[in-house]
Amino acid sequence: MRTDLDSTATATASASASANPTQIDPFVRVRGARENNLQNVDVAIPRDAIVAFTGVSGSGKSSLAFGTIFAEAQRRFFESVAPYARRLIQQGHTPKVEEISGLPPAVALQQRRGTPSSRSSVGTLTTLSNSVRMMYSRAGTYPAGAAHLAAEAFSPNTATGACPVCHGLGVAHTVSEQTLVPDTSLSIRDGAIAAWPGAWQGKNLRDITVELGYDIDSPWRDLPQKARDWLLFTEEQPTVQVTPQRDRVAKPYSGRFWSAKSYVMHTLADSKSQPMRDRALAYMTSGPCPSCDGSGLRPEALAITVAGLSIADLNALPLTELAATLRPVAHATTGTRPTPRDHSSAGTEAPSDNNAEIAATISRDLLQRVEVLLELGLGYLSLNRATVTLSPGEMQRLRIATQLRSGLFGVIYVLDEPSAGLHPADAEPLLAVLEQLKASGNSVYVVEHNMDIVRRADWLVDVGPRAGEGGGHILYSGPVAGLADVADSITRPFLFDETATGAAGGAGGVATSATAAAATAATAAAPPTAGVRAAAGDSSRALRSPEHWLRLSGIRHHNLRDLDAGVPLGILTAVTGVSGSGKSTLVSQVLADVVGRHVHTPASEASGEADTTATSTTTATTTAGDDDLALDLDPALAPALDPTDERVTVRSVTGIDTVDRLVRVDQKPIGRTPRSNLATYTGLFDAVRKVFAATDEARSRGFGAGRFSFNVAGGRCETCQGEGFIAVEMVFLPGTYGPCPTCHGSRYNADTLEVTYRGKSVADVLGLTVEAAATFLADVPAAARSLETLREVGLGYLRLGQPATELSGGEAQRIKLATELQRARRGHTLYLLDEPTTGLHPADVRLLLTQLNRLVDAGNTVVVVEHNMDVVAAADWVIDLGPSGGDEGGMIVAAGTPHQVATHATSKTAPYLARRLTPA
Amino acid sequence: MRTDLDSTATATASASASANPTQIDPFVRVRGARENNLQNVDVAIPRDAIVAFTGVSGSGKSSLAFGTIFAEAQRRFFESVAPYARRLIQQGHTPKVEEISGLPPAVALQQRRGTPSSRSSVGTLTTLSNSVRMMYSRAGTYPAGAAHLAAEAFSPNTATGACPVCHGLGVAHTVSEQTLVPDTSLSIRDGAIAAWPGAWQGKNLRDITVELGYDIDSPWRDLPQKARDWLLFTEEQPTVQVTPQRDRVAKPYSGRFWSAKSYVMHTLADSKSQPMRDRALAYMTSGPCPSCDGSGLRPEALAITVAGLSIADLNALPLTELAATLRPVAHATTGTRPTPRDHSSAGTEAPSDNNAEIAATISRDLLQRVEVLLELGLGYLSLNRATVTLSPGEMQRLRIATQLRSGLFGVIYVLDEPSAGLHPADAEPLLAVLEQLKASGNSVYVVEHNMDIVRRADWLVDVGPRAGEGGGHILYSGPVAGLADVADSITRPFLFDETATGAAGGAGGVATSATAAAATAATAAAPPTAGVRAAAGDSSRALRSPEHWLRLSGIRHHNLRDLDAGVPLGILTAVTGVSGSGKSTLVSQVLADVVGRHVHTPASEASGEADTTATSTTTATTTAGDDDLALDLDPALAPALDPTDERVTVRSVTGIDTVDRLVRVDQKPIGRTPRSNLATYTGLFDAVRKVFAATDEARSRGFGAGRFSFNVAGGRCETCQGEGFIAVEMVFLPGTYGPCPTCHGSRYNADTLEVTYRGKSVADVLGLTVEAAATFLADVPAAARSLETLREVGLGYLRLGQPATELSGGEAQRIKLATELQRARRGHTLYLLDEPTTGLHPADVRLLLTQLNRLVDAGNTVVVVEHNMDVVAAADWVIDLGPSGGDEGGMIVAAGTPHQVATHATSKTAPYLARRLTPA
Ligand SMILES: Nc1ncnc2c1ncn2[C@@H]1O[C@H](COP(=O)(O)OP(=O)(O)O)[C@@H](O)[C@H]1O
Ligand SMILES: Nc1ncnc2c1ncn2[C@@H]1O[C@H](COP(=O)(O)OP(=O)(O)O)[C@@H](O)[C@H]1O
Ligand SMILES: Nc1ncnc2c1ncn2[C@@H]1O[C@H](COP(=O)(O)OP(=O)(O)O)[C@@H](O)[C@H]1O
Ligand SMILES: Nc1ncnc2c1ncn2[C@@H]1O[C@H](COP(=O)(O)OP(=O)(O)O)[C@@H](O)[C@H]1O
Ligand SMILES: [Zn+2]
Ligand SMILES: [Zn+2]
Ligand SMILES: [Zn+2]
Ligand SMILES: [Zn+2]
Repeated sequence: MRTDLDSTATATASASASANPTQIDPFVRVRGARENNLQNVDVAIPRDAIVAFTGVSGSGKSSLAFGTIFAEAQRRFFESVAPYARRLIQQGHTPKVEEISGLPPAVALQQRRGTPSSRSSVGTLTTLSNSVRMMYSRAGTYPAGAAHLAAEAFSPNTATGACPVCHGLGVAHTVSEQTLVPDTSLSIRDGAIAAWPGAWQGKNLRDITVELGYDIDSPWRDLPQKARDWLLFTEEQPTVQVTPQRDRVAKPYSGRFWSAKSYVMHTLADSKSQPMRDRALAYMTSGPCPSCDGSGLRPEALAITVAGLSIADLNALPLTELAATLRPVAHATTGTRPTPRDHSSAGTEAPSDNNAEIAATISRDLLQRVEVLLELGLGYLSLNRATVTLSPGEMQRLRIATQLRSGLFGVIYVLDEPSAGLHPADAEPLLAVLEQLKASGNSVYVVEHNMDIVRRADWLVDVGPRAGEGGGHILYSGPVAGLADVADSITRPFLFDETATGAAGGAGGVATSATAAAATAATAAAPPTAGVRAAAGDSSRALRSPEHWLRLSGIRHHNLRDLDAGVPLGILTAVTGVSGSGKSTLVSQVLADVVGRHVHTPASEASGEADTTATSTTTATTTAGDDDLALDLDPALAPALDPTDERVTVRSVTGIDTVDRLVRVDQKPIGRTPRSNLATYTGLFDAVRKVFAATDEARSRGFGAGRFSFNVAGGRCETCQGEGFIAVEMVFLPGTYGPCPTCHGSRYNADTLEVTYRGKSVADVLGLTVEAAATFLADVPAAARSLETLREVGLGYLRLGQPATELSGGEAQRIKLATELQRARRGHTLYLLDEPTTGLHPADVRLLLTQLNRLVDAGNTVVVVEHNMDVVAAADWVIDLGPSGGDEGGMIVAAGTPHQVATHATSKTAPYLARRLTPA
Repeated sequence: MRTDLDSTATATASASASANPTQIDPFVRVRGARENNLQNVDVAIPRDAIVAFTGVSGSGKSSLAFGTIFAEAQRRFFESVAPYARRLIQQGHTPKVEEISGLPPAVALQQRRGTPSSRSSVGTLTTLSNSVRMMYSRAGTYPAGAAHLAAEAFSPNTATGACPVCHGLGVAHTVSEQTLVPDTSLSIRDGAIAAWPGAWQGKNLRDITVELGYDIDSPWRDLPQKARDWLLFTEEQPTVQVTPQRDRVAKPYSGRFWSAKSYVMHTLADSKSQPMRDRALAYMTSGPCPSCDGSGLRPEALAITVAGLSIADLNALPLTELAATLRPVAHATTGTRPTPRDHSSAGTEAPSDNNAEIAATISRDLLQRVEVLLELGLGYLSLNRATVTLSPGEMQRLRIATQLRSGLFGVIYVLDEPSAGLHPADAEPLLAVLEQLKASGNSVYVVEHNMDIVRRADWLVDVGPRAGEGGGHILYSGPVAGLADVADSITRPFLFDETATGAAGGAGGVATSATAAAATAATAAAPPTAGVRAAAGDSSRALRSPEHWLRLSGIRHHNLRDLDAGVPLGILTAVTGVSGSGKSTLVSQVLADVVGRHVHTPASEASGEADTTATSTTTATTTAGDDDLALDLDPALAPALDPTDERVTVRSVTGIDTVDRLVRVDQKPIGRTPRSNLATYTGLFDAVRKVFAATDEARSRGFGAGRFSFNVAGGRCETCQGEGFIAVEMVFLPGTYGPCPTCHGSRYNADTLEVTYRGKSVADVLGLTVEAAATFLADVPAAARSLETLREVGLGYLRLGQPATELSGGEAQRIKLATELQRARRGHTLYLLDEPTTGLHPADVRLLLTQLNRLVDAGNTVVVVEHNMDVVAAADWVIDLGPSGGDEGGMIVAAGTPHQVATHATSKTAPYLARRLTPA
């Protein structure tokens, strides 16, 4: 028998010759793309290359990379493989494009948060957990006499592995003295045991307690511990004869004692009254399950060790430490390589191997994969970290790293700003990973704003020139260097560092190129001072001085261990540091929590859950006056709560009294249904509807403002119930959407549309851009104010009726910011922003800075977590966390003006900030 | 602004240089493949090439191409794209392979029948229907004043398009005089109106009929038509006073009349008794819906025409005629090209175009696509043909042609014998299509037995040498010519036509190479005469003469129009002709129906539905004595019934009396659950269980034969209920299967396994190959006979307990054949086989012929539909249908001995048969 490898070797040359007689076109060629704002574009993009898609926010980069190329690739593949499976996979959308040739299957790695409902963790997402379980099953140290466990037994998500107490959830709901007795200064008679029922039932229990010989008149805290424990937690239920003391009418009766815990548990288990159950729930806390210590695993599984650690211990290690633990195991022995991939199966028996050797093989494999994560700056994460607690950037980098092992060949990876959340220091390893994906035979298409990454791509596609209707053209598609010749490109000056040079020479130089273009893009007329302030690196600008300081000491949360931090009030502060250093913990958790508790957040500004747990923060994005918004409440939008996460603790806080409001401006969608849109969200639609209701025509017909809402019966089209489109129902096939045949997408019924204001129906007004509406509604003050601020944040190109579902994260964030800006400018508000530049082109970053400065100039405080050095350089104050991530972070490495921090000797941020501040 | 195409052109060279610095390995490299019988093989297979996988049936070709390469590609892609979607797409299987590199995503085009439950048609499967609907919607001729219809309105599968009478099904269930009155010679009194109820209810109705003045004593056929119509169909329900005539006890009463139709409809609508409803159903027939004439469309849609035809007319045209109809439309005008792909959407208005131009554009597109189907020999199909009525080969070719339009790039297409069902004359166009898939940038991997196709591949992977445990090695992987040097290959002599040359020189020459190898492969000791007869092209062999003739005249069914056909009895007949010529219609429908009605098929051999409709045939595959088989009844295995299909009609039949049994041997699975296996299906497991029950050990324990079944409680393992494996339940994740922890896959409980026969437990015996069992059970006559025939058909390598789900179509067919062969050989059985060589290597075809000849030698008749010239040349008689497919077929072009047909002047089969019979 001839071996295949011989024949392969000898035949390779002839095969490639015969198999590939004609050269295959190395481009993906797109013709006639009209998705969203794309202006019927044609473009050729190479395969087997790293391609960067650039352009200002809203220019159409994502519409091309995701909406056209990725969507069409997915559609084709699923249509071929399993036409009926397509609608089970999220996207069912057929992009508007005439033709794409040379298009391989594609995989999108977008920035998404983990779904709150999923139980996935860093370990499951990366599939590292599979190998870890295998290692414990096959090569763990078992207690003497313990039976061999299958790999599934090490997973809390399997029936065999789950802890029987908490069913694998790792969480137990329980009562504690703190929850049952919130105020220990009260006596039992005055209601110390808050969890006990009220009214006569409570009185009975107090009477029984007296008969049992307890003191009900001293403050709770003065009772002996034994008495307190018994009253709260006993399961005994003694029955005593009670003679009512005060009530002359009542006769002696036989009463049964219930401890507070018994009473709460009994209510939860047996009561059919929801209010009673809710009240009982309020006295419980959730915490790690006492049986499995939060790991969700059975005791049998927890008894097995590797390197002296149980699987729960190992899963809790930061990846840096996990790697350190695995290294000696991996290098213990070297022998023949068993194949971990073969989980064997019925019929075939696994050969009996030496434990150490198996452990070494699996460890080597694990180590290789963990090291990729360390390189991507994720060493501070642990395998057991719930994905729901990760930032979108962290999620995406985990997914990218996982793809290195996927073995995919010949696909296009489409990535959404992989640098998001990444400290400049970590850009190099990211590029190495992208290069590796390419070296494995794939194409890597990245939508990216970080010029350090863009510069290193093989090819660049610049979309623009401006946003929305002012964009959607391909300005350039070619090798990166070629962009230098494209005059129209807003990206060009940033790519070739013309702005940095300009900054060195003064802000004026910048204005001639990028800033001018950006200003045109946004059609925003920024006040001159703001324009100057916005120009980062302008070393001559006057820094603001803080009015007051908010000082927190003894902060403990995550990796902040007894940290003291001072936040200057009334100025713009940037919080920096490598990924995992503690920036979000400090700003979005500790500050948000401390200030949130202090201010009396109006009900409309707090999310439902915000007050009930210590880890949650006051998410005061914005409010809107329109009834439409009520349709928008989506639990998925609420901040994710992790019951196993520790509480924020802070020893002392000073200077908080000068803060009287807290606002967080984030990138979460402003709504998840097409019923919510720019006009409803900002509240400007209220004004529009009032204008229509005030017309003579509306009055003569008796139409009030409600008539002009498309969300309630009355004025809306009832065929589509105001949605503008209907599902085209296919009896046995996947459905699609089409414009509503009755209202043709206008959303309103004919009577409503007959009412016009200055010649336009309400549907016509929803079709206007912000720009056009600003003119049309110039004399309607409530609308004009909104429209003006929307223009100022560069959103002039958006249509008023643009559904929330069609907005990018960056657009959503700027809408929130605009909604804030349009409010009456009372000072003393603390604005917290977490990486507001995500999704923003450098030109857009300028606009954003202008707006942040306006907030500060009006007397407010702005704190931004940022990696973008343009923003950091433009701040008044910088707090740099570090030195590294996780346990090696959590300290303030440097704090001061940008110049002070830039010259700090050990700060990892310093060199990048210095480069931004100093001429190249 | 610089145009992208300029920049692309100028930059191409530098991009390909920078994007692709290192040469990418052009091979898919498989290491350590162990799926099914693969012996830990390594192999390198080029991408961007047409690769043929060859080897005898059971050698492991599919295990490599589908089970390993395709399965792993699918797994990787879905794991990356949508890990949770994977189990929604059929395969969740992780192949046993150590590593595969350079593996792009893959698409499998397997031979599958349409699912009986689906409403798909040739038009929907190919997506041609979408374009046709668009053409009618946008460019059809509308009656004056008719409203414009959307494309969906031309689909019976949409709510807007479906005929309101039949809900788009095209089928109406109705009653007719024939069904209500099966015997017109009876009088009403004697029960002519069979559909009326029986007993006293029926007597009442007869009494009422008399009161109404009708004659109930003449034979039904003598009543006036008007009376007959009224009695059967009126909706009137007159009430009359009835004085019971014969029953002296009964008093006069008021009785209401029900026509037979009213009664049946009422019963179906209102009766809760299932037997009553079933009885009523038996009086109904289904036929085309009278409102839409079977098209399933609304009258409004049917009123729109293109080229003078309604969409229903157009959909009913054979594709050849459809192309002829479209040609003039397509070339009517040439103008700018509107883009049919853009179905537009809310907000954008389609530009108003010239109808003729749109029609021309859409027609050109349609025409291009239809022409591919014509080239693949499918011109006889119509767009409205239900896919469920297509053969697996026809389905696969439709799918392949559809893929030309999929726009996929860089994927591996894995195809299963694309030549199946294809006349040799159509091989060339198929190759052209495969070349086109490759030219579009894909790899084409085909499992193929047709050497004319294999010879034209770029690369060949030969798997073997033999089947099952005797195979699973890669004998060769390289350019086709290189196989000439591989001595062990059973494919080699067939590929290089050594057998044809050998045949010319006499059977002896063949025996030294291929036949010898084949004999080894099968370990079958074929009797010398059979061996000689099997050698096709042996012109010296004595042809058998028919004993009798079965003559059918005036056959009408599908494209057979008043055909007279004579089928010689007692010999081997091959029915040939291009695809669509009418072979299956003649053999599997007409002959099967006519003979099926004649013979009294034992209940155990007929499928449940077989007797109730005229179009169904007697599917008498085999029976098995084991109780296990009862678990196997799967409605999906029943022949698909198409209620809109016409009935078989035959004017007269002679010579049928000498046939007393009908058997069809097809490739359908022998069972769909792993509970059915080779041993249970053939009945040989009965003998095995009796042997075990007869041991002293079993008797002393009181174990009967039932104890040794794994399908009933008693002897089986209850943990897995006799399945041998259990689902490993993952609480939130897709489940997987693992060996049963209790019985470790043996399926039995410990007590049962303690009973041994000659040192083996019943589980051990199920683990034996047929080969080994033949020795072990040599002295158990009931088992030995079965085992011997299984060896004779080349299945010696199968294990007795091999689950039905793990058998290929070819293996299933040969098991059925063996089960037939093991029966007492009484003659006068008619065996009908439709393409029994599908999935068979030429060496296996030899074995098959040997067995068919044995059946004939025992006095039976064998009729095979075949394209394989080895089989045709070896037949005693050939019936060649044609001249082409569809309406241009349906005639007997030639009938005679192979030599006679081979010299026929116009037969399309003649040249190929001649080549096989004459020396090269
Ligand atoms: N689903 C959608 N439907 C309609 N318009 C959209 C949708 N998504 C984005 N847009 C609009 O299309 C334009 C381009 O958006 P996008 O491609 O997301 O830009 P970028 O990725 O460059 O930020 C913007 O005006 C945006 O508001
Ligand atoms: N929800 C959480 N549960 C457990 N650990 C967390 C959680 N959020 C953050 N951490 C940990 O706190 C440390 C700081 O993280 P984070 O504040 O997110 O850093 P940064 O914002 O600087 O990237 C890290 O070790 C991180 O793993
Ligand atoms: N799912 C399965 N499980 C176990 N054995 C299988 C399965 N499918 C096929 N086999 C066996 O593996 C061997 C190779 O089968 P297959 O790859 O289908 O061969 P080929 O495609 O060459 O006809 C045969 O012995 C067959 O019975
Ligand atoms: N179930 C059916 N419904 C309608 N037409 C059919 C059906 N089966 C076959 N035909 C038609 O009958 C003709 C002969 O087909 P068939 O007997 O399948 O040919 P062959 O077996 O030679 O390929 C063709 O025109 C085919 O379209
Ligand atoms: Zn637990
Ligand atoms: Zn509507
Ligand atoms: Zn109908
Ligand atoms: Zn079992």
